[in-house]
Amino acid sequence: MTEVIGAAAEAEIRADDRAYVLHSWSAQAAIDPLPIAGAEGSYFWDYTGKRYLDFSSQLVNMNIGYQHPRLVEAIKEQAERLCMISPAFANDVRGKAARLIVERATPNMDKVFFTNGGAEANENAVRMARLHTGRHKVLAAYRSYHGATAGAIALTGDPRRWASEPGTPGIVRYWGPYLYRSAFHATTEAEESERAVQHLRDLIEVEGAQTIAAIVLETVVGTNGILVPPAGYLAGVRELCDQHGIVMIADEVMSGFGRCGEWFAIQHWGVEPDLITFAKGVNSGYVPLGGVVMSQAIAATFNERAYPGGLTYSGHPLACASAVASIEIFEDEGILEHARMLGTDVIGPGLRELAERHPSVGEVRGLGVFWALELVTDRQSRTPLVPFNAAGDAAAPMNAFAAACKDRGLWPFTHFNRTHVVPPCTTTADEARAGLAILDEALTVADGYYVGA
Amino acid sequence: MTEVIGAAAEAEIRADDRAYVLHSWSAQAAIDPLPIAGAEGSYFWDYTGKRYLDFSSQLVNMNIGYQHPRLVEAIKEQAERLCMISPAFANDVRGKAARLIVERATPNMDKVFFTNGGAEANENAVRMARLHTGRHKVLAAYRSYHGATAGAIALTGDPRRWASEPGTPGIVRYWGPYLYRSAFHATTEAEESERAVQHLRDLIEVEGAQTIAAIVLETVVGTNGILVPPAGYLAGVRELCDQHGIVMIADEVMSGFGRCGEWFAIQHWGVEPDLITFAKGVNSGYVPLGGVVMSQAIAATFNERAYPGGLTYSGHPLACASAVASIEIFEDEGILEHARMLGTDVIGPGLRELAERHPSVGEVRGLGVFWALELVTDRQSRTPLVPFNAAGDAAAPMNAFAAACKDRGLWPFTHFNRTHVVPPCTTTADEARAGLAILDEALTVADGYYVGA
Ligand SMILES: Cc1ncc(COP(=O)(O)O)c(C=O)c1O
Ligand SMILES: Cc1ncc(COP(=O)(O)O)c(C=O)c1O
Repeated sequence: MTEVIGAAAEAEIRADDRAYVLHSWSAQAAIDPLPIAGAEGSYFWDYTGKRYLDFSSQLVNMNIGYQHPRLVEAIKEQAERLCMISPAFANDVRGKAARLIVERATPNMDKVFFTNGGAEANENAVRMARLHTGRHKVLAAYRSYHGATAGAIALTGDPRRWASEPGTPGIVRYWGPYLYRSAFHATTEAEESERAVQHLRDLIEVEGAQTIAAIVLETVVGTNGILVPPAGYLAGVRELCDQHGIVMIADEVMSGFGRCGEWFAIQHWGVEPDLITFAKGVNSGYVPLGGVVMSQAIAATFNERAYPGGLTYSGHPLACASAVASIEIFEDEGILEHARMLGTDVIGPGLRELAERHPSVGEVRGLGVFWALELVTDRQSRTPLVPFNAAGDAAAPMNAFAAACKDRGLWPFTHFNRTHVVPPCTTTADEARAGLAILDEALTVADGYYVGA
Repeated sequence: MTEVIGAAAEAEIRADDRAYVLHSWSAQAAIDPLPIAGAEGSYFWDYTGKRYLDFSSQLVNMNIGYQHPRLVEAIKEQAERLCMISPAFANDVRGKAARLIVERATPNMDKVFFTNGGAEANENAVRMARLHTGRHKVLAAYRSYHGATAGAIALTGDPRRWASEPGTPGIVRYWGPYLYRSAFHATTEAEESERAVQHLRDLIEVEGAQTIAAIVLETVVGTNGILVPPAGYLAGVRELCDQHGIVMIADEVMSGFGRCGEWFAIQHWGVEPDLITFAKGVNSGYVPLGGVVMSQAIAATFNERAYPGGLTYSGHPLACASAVASIEIFEDEGILEHARMLGTDVIGPGLRELAERHPSVGEVRGLGVFWALELVTDRQSRTPLVPFNAAGDAAAPMNAFAAACKDRGLWPFTHFNRTHVVPPCTTTADEARAGLAILDEALTVADGYYVGA
């Protein structure tokens, strides 16, 4: 399997792909997946040799950048030592990965249950919360994505859950804070925070606190908008949970491991959840891995009582070895610090500058390397550039914007009327600036749809 | 990370494991997971240097044996080329893995949807069946395990689902064929087959065929007993599905890729299901991977209509490269043929011989490298050596049997009152005979509990 670049290789790859691979979230006749030939650092390239600066980190998982030599080396070494041993045994890298993760989580944390990805992590978090509390209901946000297995898709608020409904029972939906489109008619951050907590308090009252096992939230909502919680919100949720014996689950599958400049985004706000779910950034997806970090109290629930969940690849050695290496590389290379710097010194200011020049930018928000531009046709009414869940012709303005980025060698992450700026955490300041310059050009396309004053 | 064997390393590994890792399906205070130092071929060993001949293949996934040099090399090569690219792109090894799998499946098969493991495969198979038929109910067997996410655990018939109930709605439970403990009072294979099909026919009638999306079965039931379907049963299920437009899902997570001497066990019976789910043996778990193989008809459903499911690591290149290599190794080394030979010439005859000498062996059944000994206290009444779902003291006889195996350097797979003989498909005839000789000794322990005539 040597690397071939060229038309013949591409044609064969495309043929196999179209004939044999079912792609997720897509009508197969409507897509034409681009064959990728290779990747390094902040870039990937196709078989024509065209390189893309990646402002998407694939599915916001490539936190350490592509093909980090030391991480690749660690995977090769572990492959030679021991690829797989079952969850029933003890294994050096599994134990070490768990220790490194717990040591970097909030001080209340105790143990890790490993999974293959984010959906399974959330499935197990809900299972733990239900058994720990003896209650069934789970409060989950409308603007959220938690994965696509039956339990995770039922938690999910976004339209991807529709085709899987009716789903698992016992999910109660709430609105989270989102000042730009406030569900609470708030006009300030403080008001939004207070009213969003009040909304949860009211919901707990009418649902019955003693029926509620957990409140699940994305610490910073990811795919559904990079919604950064206003000051006080997470502490308010924590207080409600404490008051009523409800388990607080922070889904950090997307927001963790450097994305927000911290190991876990919630550390930015100094709040301790009971459960944290992770995947993606833990090893940048080099090997499938996810998991749940649990508090001492929840871990203790399963000391004398069996934990009734599992999977063949829980604590997979190859995956765990890559997590160990990735965490060590993060520390040796100061990647968290770099991610924070990118947010405060480069991407944040850069995007705000773009907003000044481009009327179609309705709002800039984010932290670390987790940013969104909300695109609108009118700043006054805040009308989205494309409607909620737009597809086909209705999505044309966003597709035109994305095409303008790709033409210029930038791979954007777009969702509804937003573009997210979520490059690898290792992206250099110069690379980030080069990407922002391309965004600057592509935003003129979005501006073309602007109808406001 | 060099390999260290010794007491110091073991103590540290044990400490990390006990402090930081939550193990599946267990009360954490009741377990003492053995630290494993390494593995090769049919053996693994601990930090005291004690070697175990593996008659469990870990969780019945290590089909190709441990640390196969060519498979390890393929993983290392792919790690250097490209560890991960998202499902939205085309990728050479992903397309090739899908093609190799489809080409080796039943002739009606068309495409693969990749997942990280078996649970996610079954989740997606059910999703496909529901959307393809526009119906909701799924018929699933009591004696079954399908995984531990909300959808998969609801399909699961064995006691592992209890703690997750009430689960997802729409599952209807049926009894499968199991002549030794027939739910249908049958006394011959032919009778068992016919009555099990009649039971399904009756169930379809009273549930309403037009409400039933799928019948799911393990082609050969795995953890719940290595229940080999009698002649005619699978064809009978196929016929019922055809008659009523029901999707037939064959869960081959455990039975596929050599375990039964075929790529897919169902090929042994010449029946074509609509969906096959796989994981484990596809790459022996060297990298987490699973998936669904779907028929032309089901693939076509998602040509114009979006497939509403996905996961970040669908078609993970590192995992797919290992599947490609594993399939090629299987062919180059004749592993399917070897697995069949082990069943017909070594393990099958060897176990039947043991049954002659050991009264506690109530039944021997299996094929390929997929065998069970059903242990009883009385052959007449067929009373199980330990009760259904026994734990603690009630499980003592099986624990004593397992300890006798381990003392002698054989790692057995035990479940309820059975021991399964499920070594790697690459186990040599001599190794298999050595393991059978240890079973011979350990069975005298089981015989000690025998109370029959
Ligand atoms: C916040 C969040 N949770 C869960 C998931 C699901 O993770 P996976 O795709 O690994 O199942 C995702 C994936 O995008 C996510 O962003
Ligand atoms: C028949 C069968 N289906 C599904 C599964 C679940 O697979 P996983 O543990 O990879 O989720 C298993 C696991 O043992 C299995 O044996």
